[in-house]
Amino acid sequence: MRSDGRQTDQMRPVTIVPDYLKTAEGSVLIEFGNTRVLCAATVEDSVPPFKKNSGEGWVTAEYSMLPRATVTRTPREVSKGRQSGRTLEIQRLIGRSLRAIVDLRKLGERSIIVDCDVLQADGGTRTASITGAMIALGMVANRLLEARMTPAGVLLDSVAAISVGIVDGEPMLDLCYTEDSRADVDMNVVLTGAGRYVELQSTAEQNAFDDQQLQAMIALARKGIGELGTLQRNYFKL
Amino acid sequence: MRSDGRQTDQMRPVTIVPDYLKTAEGSVLIEFGNTRVLCAATVEDSVPPFKKNSGEGWVTAEYSMLPRATVTRTPREVSKGRQSGRTLEIQRLIGRSLRAIVDLRKLGERSIIVDCDVLQADGGTRTASITGAMIALGMVANRLLEARMTPAGVLLDSVAAISVGIVDGEPMLDLCYTEDSRADVDMNVVLTGAGRYVELQSTAEQNAFDDQQLQAMIALARKGIGELGTLQRNYFKL
Amino acid sequence: MRSDGRQTDQMRPVTIVPDYLKTAEGSVLIEFGNTRVLCAATVEDSVPPFKKNSGEGWVTAEYSMLPRATVTRTPREVSKGRQSGRTLEIQRLIGRSLRAIVDLRKLGERSIIVDCDVLQADGGTRTASITGAMIALGMVANRLLEARMTPAGVLLDSVAAISVGIVDGEPMLDLCYTEDSRADVDMNVVLTGAGRYVELQSTAEQNAFDDQQLQAMIALARKGIGELGTLQRNYFKL
Amino acid sequence: MRSDGRQTDQMRPVTIVPDYLKTAEGSVLIEFGNTRVLCAATVEDSVPPFKKNSGEGWVTAEYSMLPRATVTRTPREVSKGRQSGRTLEIQRLIGRSLRAIVDLRKLGERSIIVDCDVLQADGGTRTASITGAMIALGMVANRLLEARMTPAGVLLDSVAAISVGIVDGEPMLDLCYTEDSRADVDMNVVLTGAGRYVELQSTAEQNAFDDQQLQAMIALARKGIGELGTLQRNYFKL
Amino acid sequence: MRSDGRQTDQMRPVTIVPDYLKTAEGSVLIEFGNTRVLCAATVEDSVPPFKKNSGEGWVTAEYSMLPRATVTRTPREVSKGRQSGRTLEIQRLIGRSLRAIVDLRKLGERSIIVDCDVLQADGGTRTASITGAMIALGMVANRLLEARMTPAGVLLDSVAAISVGIVDGEPMLDLCYTEDSRADVDMNVVLTGAGRYVELQSTAEQNAFDDQQLQAMIALARKGIGELGTLQRNYFKL
Amino acid sequence: MRSDGRQTDQMRPVTIVPDYLKTAEGSVLIEFGNTRVLCAATVEDSVPPFKKNSGEGWVTAEYSMLPRATVTRTPREVSKGRQSGRTLEIQRLIGRSLRAIVDLRKLGERSIIVDCDVLQADGGTRTASITGAMIALGMVANRLLEARMTPAGVLLDSVAAISVGIVDGEPMLDLCYTEDSRADVDMNVVLTGAGRYVELQSTAEQNAFDDQQLQAMIALARKGIGELGTLQRNYFKL
Repeated sequence: MRSDGRQTDQMRPVTIVPDYLKTAEGSVLIEFGNTRVLCAATVEDSVPPFKKNSGEGWVTAEYSMLPRATVTRTPREVSKGRQSGRTLEIQRLIGRSLRAIVDLRKLGERSIIVDCDVLQADGGTRTASITGAMIALGMVANRLLEARMTPAGVLLDSVAAISVGIVDGEPMLDLCYTEDSRADVDMNVVLTGAGRYVELQSTAEQNAFDDQQLQAMIALARKGIGELGTLQRNYFKL
Repeated sequence: MRSDGRQTDQMRPVTIVPDYLKTAEGSVLIEFGNTRVLCAATVEDSVPPFKKNSGEGWVTAEYSMLPRATVTRTPREVSKGRQSGRTLEIQRLIGRSLRAIVDLRKLGERSIIVDCDVLQADGGTRTASITGAMIALGMVANRLLEARMTPAGVLLDSVAAISVGIVDGEPMLDLCYTEDSRADVDMNVVLTGAGRYVELQSTAEQNAFDDQQLQAMIALARKGIGELGTLQRNYFKL
Repeated sequence: MRSDGRQTDQMRPVTIVPDYLKTAEGSVLIEFGNTRVLCAATVEDSVPPFKKNSGEGWVTAEYSMLPRATVTRTPREVSKGRQSGRTLEIQRLIGRSLRAIVDLRKLGERSIIVDCDVLQADGGTRTASITGAMIALGMVANRLLEARMTPAGVLLDSVAAISVGIVDGEPMLDLCYTEDSRADVDMNVVLTGAGRYVELQSTAEQNAFDDQQLQAMIALARKGIGELGTLQRNYFKL
Repeated sequence: MRSDGRQTDQMRPVTIVPDYLKTAEGSVLIEFGNTRVLCAATVEDSVPPFKKNSGEGWVTAEYSMLPRATVTRTPREVSKGRQSGRTLEIQRLIGRSLRAIVDLRKLGERSIIVDCDVLQADGGTRTASITGAMIALGMVANRLLEARMTPAGVLLDSVAAISVGIVDGEPMLDLCYTEDSRADVDMNVVLTGAGRYVELQSTAEQNAFDDQQLQAMIALARKGIGELGTLQRNYFKL
Repeated sequence: MRSDGRQTDQMRPVTIVPDYLKTAEGSVLIEFGNTRVLCAATVEDSVPPFKKNSGEGWVTAEYSMLPRATVTRTPREVSKGRQSGRTLEIQRLIGRSLRAIVDLRKLGERSIIVDCDVLQADGGTRTASITGAMIALGMVANRLLEARMTPAGVLLDSVAAISVGIVDGEPMLDLCYTEDSRADVDMNVVLTGAGRYVELQSTAEQNAFDDQQLQAMIALARKGIGELGTLQRNYFKL
Repeated sequence: MRSDGRQTDQMRPVTIVPDYLKTAEGSVLIEFGNTRVLCAATVEDSVPPFKKNSGEGWVTAEYSMLPRATVTRTPREVSKGRQSGRTLEIQRLIGRSLRAIVDLRKLGERSIIVDCDVLQADGGTRTASITGAMIALGMVANRLLEARMTPAGVLLDSVAAISVGIVDGEPMLDLCYTEDSRADVDMNVVLTGAGRYVELQSTAEQNAFDDQQLQAMIALARKGIGELGTLQRNYFKL
C-alpha cells in the first residue's frame, strides 16, 4: 500500500550505533529507514549569559544537513552567511524537547550541546534527531553521574518524537520523503516516556483538517513513540 | 481573577483601524488589549523564482517588532545582520496561515506580501498578526476583484488565530505577556472561518501536558476565534 | 499654488500625540502632514565603551522606515544584513542634533536612545524625526529630574528641524515628497531654540545654487522652526 | 599662530602627481599637506539597474582609508563585514559632487567609478578626495573625447572642495587633524568652477553658530576653492 | 616508537566504503586511521559564470568539519557567517588537485562538486579528502561514460595526497593529530598516478628546514601515495 | 626573450622607500618592477586571546589590493562583506613567514601587525609583501630596541620571498603578471637569511611537474632571494 510496502501504522526500521565518534562525550548514529543522523553531545563548563550565576545549567541543540543528504545537492548555509528559518526552527524544537526532561538545577552550571547532523535525509529528520539526541544526552548524563560530577536525577524522564500525517486522505505513521511531500497535513509529536506532550506541531500543507483527523494522527504517534522508547532504554538509564 | 480582571475564557478588547496607511494597498492597525500591530498588504506583479511561469501567485508575510514595542528596549535585528529564529518562525507561520485560504491559481502570477510590524507588545503578537493580516489581505483581495484584476474566488475562506495556555494549572484564553511568561503550556491555534485547523502549535514551557488539557485548550481557542471571525467579517467579503 | 494649496512659506499641519506607547519612558507620535513618525526614548544605565568612566552620559538615535511607509514597498534593511548609507546618515544627524542641547556631564553615566520609526513617509522624515525626538527626549529629561535621578540643567536648550528647497526656481518651506523629488536644491536646517545653527546641509540635486538662494532658504527655515519650537514647548520644560 | 605656522586664511601646500597608476584609465595622487589620497577613475561599459536603457550614464565614487593612514591603526572595514556610516556618507558626497558637473546623457550608457583611497590622513580627506577625483575624472573625460567615444560637453564645469571651521572662536581655512578635532564648527563646502554651491555641510561639533560666523566660513571656503580650481585646470580641459 | 606503534615510514590503515550515500551520484566514506571523511560528488548541468559558453566544464570542492569531529567542540562556521581562512585554503587545494587530472573540455559544460565533510578528525583531513574525493570523482566519471554523457578520456590520470613532517627531528609519514601538533615542519604532497607533482606545500611550523630534510620528506610522501594509488584503483577505471 | 627583455634568472628592478608614512611606527613602499606594495608595521600593547598571559607576543599581517591595483577594476572585499580565500591565504602566509624569524618571548606581550596594501599589481604581490613587511618589521624591531622596550634578539634572522615558475617549459625567476597567467607551474619560496626554508608552495596550474623541474625552480629562487637579502640589510640590523 505505501511506497515501501509498510502498513499505515508501521514505522520504518530503526537502527542505532552508539558511540559512533571517538571524539565526543556521547554520540549515536541513528537511522529511521534511509534517514541517517549523527547526534553528538558535548559537555562544556560554561553556560549562556542568561544563566550565569543562576546555579542552573543549560541544554541546547544544533541541526544541520550535509549538502548531499538530499537527492538534489543543497548549498551549505555558510555560503549564505546564515542559517535558514527551517534550520533555526528545528534546532529550537530539539533544544526545547531535551530541556523538558532535564533538571537544569541538578545539572549544575554547565552546558550540554547536542549536534544533530543529517548525513542522509528521507523524511523525519527532526524527529530522528530528537530521538537520537535523547540517547546521546542520556549516555552523557549517565557518565556525568558515574564520574560523580552530578547528583542522581538529572534526567527527569526520556523524550522521543515521530512524524505523522494525512496522505491521500489516510492518516499514516513515520512519513518518508515522498509521502511527506504530498501530505495534506504534516504533524510532529514529541512525548515524554510517560506519554505526556512536550510539543505538538501540526500544519495543514494542503487542506485544513478536523478534530477526528487530529485524534487519529495523535493515536498513530503514540504507537510509534512507544516503540522508540523501548529502543532508547537500551542505551541509558533514568 | 486574572491580572486584568478577565474570566479565563474571555478575550481582551479587540480594536481595528482599517486603512491606517495612505501608502498601502490595504492596511489595518489591530489591537488585542495593549498588543498593537500594524499590518500592511502589498501587491507586486512578480512571483518568487520557484513560482515563475507556474500560472500561480504567492502570498507571504514579514514580521518585526519595533525596539520599544517591549518594556525593555530590544535591539533592532539589522544590528546583528539577520533575523532571529523567533522572527523567522513567526513570519513563516503567518505566511502559511494566509496561503491556506487563498487560491493561488486564481490570484494569478502576482505576490501579496503582508508586513506585520508590532508597535507595542503585550503577548499574542503572532496571533494578532495573523488576524490583522487576514483583514489587510481580505481588503486587498476585494479591491483586486473590484478592479477586475482577478476573478472571483481568490479567497477560499478566512483565517484567524488566538493563543491559549495553561497558567497556574488553569486553561486560559488570549494570554497577556505576564500570563504567557509564567504559563506551563503555550498554544497557538489557527482556524479557518469554517472551523478547520490550519496550524496547531503547542509547547510545554514548564510541564508536559495530557490529552484532557489539550482538549480544554482547543475548546477555548475555538470560542475566541469565533469572536474574531465575527469582527473580521466587517472589513471584507469572501 | 503648491500641490496641497499651501503658500511657499507655509508649513504642513503638525500634530503630536505624547506618550503614544505604554512601554517606553517617553514617546511621541508626530505628523508633518502625511509624514508620521513614532519617536520613543529609552534610558539605559550604561554608556558606550568610549564614555566608560568619563562621568558623562551619551545620547544617540536610531532611524528606520517600515516597508510600507512608502508608496512602493521598500524591502527591510535586515534582508540585506545592513543599514543603508541613507539610514546611517540620518540617524547620525539626529543623534548629533540632540547631543548639541544636552549637558552630558549632568546626565551622568547613562544613555538615552531615541528610536525614530517612520510609519508613513511623505517628505521631511528626518526633520520630523529630530523635532519629535526632541519632545520624547525632553519628556524623559523632565521625568529624570522629577525622579531626582539627575540635577537640573540636563537640557541646555531645545532643537528642531525643517526642510526647505528650491522647486521650479522658487524657495519653499517644508517640502512634501512630490516637491522634494523634483527640487533643484534640498536643504535641512537644525536650529536651537535660541536660533543658532546646529546643522546646515544643503545639496544641489539638479542645479548648483547661489548665495541669494541660500539666504532665502535660511529665512524660510527660521520661520518654520520658530513655529515648531512654539509647539514643542507644550510638552516639556527647559 | 596655527600649529604649522599658517595664516587663518591660508591653505596647506597642495601637490598633485597625475597618472600615478599604470593600471587605471586616469589617476592622481593628491596631497593637502600630510593628507595623501590616491584617486583612480575606472570606465565601465555598464550602468546600475536604475539607469538601464535610460540612454544615460552614471558617475559614482568609493572611499576608504588604509589602516595606517591614521596615527593609531584603524581596523579594516572588511573585518566588520560592512562600511561605516562615515565611509558611506563620504563616498555618497563625492559621488553627488562629481555628478553635479557631468552631463550624464552625453556620457552615454557607461559608468565612471572614482576610487579615493586615503594613504595618509591629516584632516580634510573628503575635500582632498573630491578635488583629486575631479582631476582623475577630468583626465578620463578628456581621453574619452579624444578616443571619440563621447561627444564634447560631458564636463559641464569642474568642482572642488575645502574644509573650513571655527577653532578657538576663529574662522580658519583647510583644517588639519589637530585643528579639526578641537573645532567648534566643521564645515565642508563644494563649489563648481563657476562658484555656485554644490554642497554645504556645516556641523556644530561643540557650540552652535550664528549667521555672521556662517558668512565668514563661506568667504574663506571661496578663497581656498578658487586656488584649487587654478591648480586643477593644469590637468584637464572643460 | 610512534604513539600508535607505527614505523616512521608507515601509513595508518586506510578503509574505504564506496557509495556510502544513496542520495549522491558517487560517494565514499574514507578513513586514514581515526580520520574519517565523507566525500560526495554531485554533477550539475551548469557551470560558473567564468566558464559560460566556453564548451568546458568545471570541477570544484567544498570542505567542512562537523563540530564534534574534534576532541574539543569547534563552533560551526555558519555561526560566524563565513568560512575560515583554513577551510577556504583546504577546499581550494582539493579543487585544484582534482582539476589537475580532469580534461575539462571532454567533461562538457557541466560541473562536478565534491563535498568533503570530516566526521572525525585525527590529522591529515585534507589529504584524506583529496584521496577520497578522487574516488568519488572517478566513480562519477565512470558512470557518466557508461551513460554516454561524456566521451572517454575525461580522467587524464588519478591523484592522491599524503602528509609528511619532521617530528622530533625525524621525517615521518602520515602524521596523526598529536604528531602534527608538535611537528617542526608540516608538508602536504599531491601527486598524480604517474608520480608527478600537482601540489607541494611545506611549512616550517617551528624550525626552518634544509634541502636534505626536504628530500627525505618527499621520499616518504612518494611511498605513501604509491600505496594509496593501489587502493584507489579498486574503485574506478582511468 | 621575456616580455620585458629579462634573462630567465633575472629579477625585476627592486626599489624601496623607507618610512613612506609619517603615521606608522615603521613603513616601506616596495616595488618589484610595476608591482608596488605599501607595508606598514603597527605595535600594539595587547595580544590575541590565545596568547593572553603567556609572556609571549604575536606577529601577524593583513593583505589587501586597492580596486585599481589591477588593470580591470576589482570590487572591494568589503562590498561582499568578507575577505576572499586568496586574501586570507596570502595574509596567513605573510604572518607565518614573519613569525618564523621573531623570538616571540623576547618581543613580550605585544603585537606587531604588518599591513600590506597593494597599490599596483603586476605579479608577485605576495612575495613583494613578505620582503617589504620584513623591512618594516625590522625597522620597528630596531626602534623597540633603541627605546629599550625589548631586549636584544627579537629578530632571530631575516626572511625574504620570491616567485618562480615554469613558463613555456622554461624555469623563470620573478614572474610578472603576463608570465604568471600562462605559467605551467607557479612556486613561491620563502627563505631565511641563512637560506633555510620557511615556506615552499608549488602549484601545477596547467601541467604536473617532475623532480628535475622542482630543483631548477629552487635554484632560481635561492639566487633571487639572495639579492633581496642584500637589499634588505640596508634598512635594519639583526
